[in-house]
Amino acid sequence: MRQLTSADLNPAVLNVQYAVRGELAIKADELNEKLKSQEHKDTLPFKKVINSNIGNPQQKGLDQPPITFTRQVAALMEYPPLVDLVKDKWPSDVIARAQQLHSEIGSVGAYSHSKGIPLIRKHVAQFISERDGYPSDPEDIFLTAGASAGVSLLLNVLITPNRTGILIPIPQYPLYTATLAQFSGVALPYHLSELDGWSTSLTEIRTALAKTESQSEGQKVTPRALVVINPGNPTGALLDVQTMEELVKLCEEHSLVLLADEVYQENLHRRDAHPFHSFKQVVRRLNSPIQLISFHSISKGVFGECGRRGGYFECCNISHDVRALLYKMVSVGLCPPLSGQVGVDCLVRPPKAGEPSHSLWKQETDAIHAALAHRTQLMAARLNALPGVSCVDSPGALYLYPKLELPPNAVEAARKLGKDADTLYALELLEATGICVVPGSGFGQKDGEHHYRLTCLCPGVEEYVGMLENFHTQFLQKYGGMQ
Amino acid sequence: MRQLTSADLNPAVLNVQYAVRGELAIKADELNEKLKSQEHKDTLPFKKVINSNIGNPQQKGLDQPPITFTRQVAALMEYPPLVDLVKDKWPSDVIARAQQLHSEIGSVGAYSHSKGIPLIRKHVAQFISERDGYPSDPEDIFLTAGASAGVSLLLNVLITPNRTGILIPIPQYPLYTATLAQFSGVALPYHLSELDGWSTSLTEIRTALAKTESQSEGQKVTPRALVVINPGNPTGALLDVQTMEELVKLCEEHSLVLLADEVYQENLHRRDAHPFHSFKQVVRRLNSPIQLISFHSISKGVFGECGRRGGYFECCNISHDVRALLYKMVSVGLCPPLSGQVGVDCLVRPPKAGEPSHSLWKQETDAIHAALAHRTQLMAARLNALPGVSCVDSPGALYLYPKLELPPNAVEAARKLGKDADTLYALELLEATGICVVPGSGFGQKDGEHHYRLTCLCPGVEEYVGMLENFHTQFLQKYGGMQ
Repeated sequence: MRQLTSADLNPAVLNVQYAVRGELAIKADELNEKLKSQEHKDTLPFKKVINSNIGNPQQKGLDQPPITFTRQVAALMEYPPLVDLVKDKWPSDVIARAQQLHSEIGSVGAYSHSKGIPLIRKHVAQFISERDGYPSDPEDIFLTAGASAGVSLLLNVLITPNRTGILIPIPQYPLYTATLAQFSGVALPYHLSELDGWSTSLTEIRTALAKTESQSEGQKVTPRALVVINPGNPTGALLDVQTMEELVKLCEEHSLVLLADEVYQENLHRRDAHPFHSFKQVVRRLNSPIQLISFHSISKGVFGECGRRGGYFECCNISHDVRALLYKMVSVGLCPPLSGQVGVDCLVRPPKAGEPSHSLWKQETDAIHAALAHRTQLMAARLNALPGVSCVDSPGALYLYPKLELPPNAVEAARKLGKDADTLYALELLEATGICVVPGSGFGQKDGEHHYRLTCLCPGVEEYVGMLENFHTQFLQKYGGMQ
Repeated sequence: MRQLTSADLNPAVLNVQYAVRGELAIKADELNEKLKSQEHKDTLPFKKVINSNIGNPQQKGLDQPPITFTRQVAALMEYPPLVDLVKDKWPSDVIARAQQLHSEIGSVGAYSHSKGIPLIRKHVAQFISERDGYPSDPEDIFLTAGASAGVSLLLNVLITPNRTGILIPIPQYPLYTATLAQFSGVALPYHLSELDGWSTSLTEIRTALAKTESQSEGQKVTPRALVVINPGNPTGALLDVQTMEELVKLCEEHSLVLLADEVYQENLHRRDAHPFHSFKQVVRRLNSPIQLISFHSISKGVFGECGRRGGYFECCNISHDVRALLYKMVSVGLCPPLSGQVGVDCLVRPPKAGEPSHSLWKQETDAIHAALAHRTQLMAARLNALPGVSCVDSPGALYLYPKLELPPNAVEAARKLGKDADTLYALELLEATGICVVPGSGFGQKDGEHHYRLTCLCPGVEEYVGMLENFHTQFLQKYGGMQ
């Protein structure tokens, strides 16, 4: 018999790349294993690996605390008889919430409706209505296993292989390029403007669209959707309302579905000066007929409940037929995890002022917001002070995306290894400090540019930035500076 | 602007069908809504809808109790400070398990390794080694969001669109046809032998393979994998070891990957007479080089934890390259839900004899096994006594799949409605009794045959079977019998 090799597999799958858990993350895992072994741990110049490659706030070593309210509700959902032990010890609104959910859902060990538990979808719709000032219909809500599962579903449904183009920002969160490759969609990249704080330029999008119009008939690609990540990942940029309105009109003009990735909507470090506006609100205010899918998640914000795999998307101006088809597809996967669905309920219905859990909830969420804002600002300032580093001090998300001017010798050394120069930089950073970041080549950048993405989640930020600074100085020394 | 319609979408997605949550299930949801409304509830001839269409033991109305050990561990993982309240009240092995997992995992709100938590993969490998008597390597284990997610991943990776054939049993669990349609794989159906207790016939598989060899060059389909569901869904049949050995040799001969869906391995009603043997064991005993992926789940068995979305697959004789590619693909989805991963740990490491939780665990699992065996046997006997109904009394799984001889008038009435006759039967059953089953057309059957699948999960089995009997009699009266 012949053994199957990767050459026998789906060629689309071979083309998938996902840098957030790619070469650097695999190397970081290996170093972590070394640190655990008695034999090797003293051969490394650091005591721990810091996974700054992924927005995973509650991971070991970062240990962002979960919100107590959410976890107490979740514990009661897991084991309802627990109420007898905690009823005089935990806040009454925790008990009431768990009892309400339990009476609606029954066991969290049962499959739910494939779109998610009807009561929780109703609560999501209420949350959206209150956020935007426009109504939302629970039938338009699909609960998902994190926003990624929703994005994957929508791209699968929208893409006719090799015929459908999807406009994606560059840099982008690599879920988009990976999923486009998986479903043989055609990426239509548009560049964000780093010099203008990573703003979104309509001209760039029009240029990308024009390229598809000049294609010959046989290779014709139909642009079908525009992906916007707001606040941006990896950039942290926040769209202003005027640009959002222009984007909606552009979608009208070109009959594009707008895929709005709004998972960082709570992660705004200067919320008074830069408030979040949803695309749903803009679409409704303009009374626009465009078809919008907006994604949200329990993994980001101050909630940070990545491991539960929860999130939702809302359909706006999507026909009954298309929604029925989305329902059919989610039904094959049965249902999103109940732990994530319960998480969504807690995200969209936090304790209100005056309720017993509210003051602890406020204290916990305020502390996380403040720590993130402090770290982001401090890291941006210190990185900007380094030679050859420039970093947009972005108002949102969990990341910074500094640009690197690298010495020609480093570029040449990387070329000899068959690597991008920012990959070389990230690998040497990991080996010297244990800090794992993602090279810019994983998110996309202009030819000849170099970046990396790092999260702003690491506690002990002074020591952490110090390690980045020392490494950078040594790297420049090693490769002879900018000459 | 032009609104998107379903005609603009991925044609492969339009072809997907999934009967378990299809027309019948949607109708059942509507009836459920009616029962909740004051206005309509008295217009229906039943007081509740019974969802016998889906193997969902813990759903409301069926209410199979979860295993206490699992849920106590899960509650402690959700809220570790709970230990202070329960340490003198819950069994010490529960506390020790939760503390061990917590010290390894940290927060269940963090993303884990994309293949799943290393310690839990190690426990899965130990479980497999003990079950089979052959070693298992944790690196070959991938934890998944239920077995469905694993099957979907493997089919996505194995299928080159329109070129790859996958052998599937008929009848089959419609996940397979749905996922083949989604990824444009070519279904190569082989019929199971109903007259021989739904046994698997090598001749049928060879016939299906021979058809691909006679195709003209331009349409050539390469058979890549053989799907075997053991114990069977919807049939409940259990393979004997000799057939398993023959199937392994056939995979050798034709270089087929064997996809072994073994999620019902615990659901055997006469375990002494009919024990489960895994394909892994057979492959190792034969020292066969075939490439095997075997799937397991926490959703079935006596565990029934569907809502957690947990499971795993094991790779056997799969090259490092192919495993790396699988890892890349799961990393795009970040990780399986932690609630499911913790569930897998409890599934593969139940309390042992002598441990404080063991006697309750044994009592709970014995009760579920006994109830399922009793219901299956009673339902099969009573259904077999009905005119025009024959039902294999299968040794395993959660279902029965009775065959119906339907009156010509019923077949004609269905034809006029553009429906299969078993769909008509199932719709009328639902409208008359509130019992929702899945018509055989959703699983596949020979032309002119009619079946339906129903679960053996409903408590109050006497009353339940009585409703099925009364309906059947009335249906025959309405359509004038077999004439």
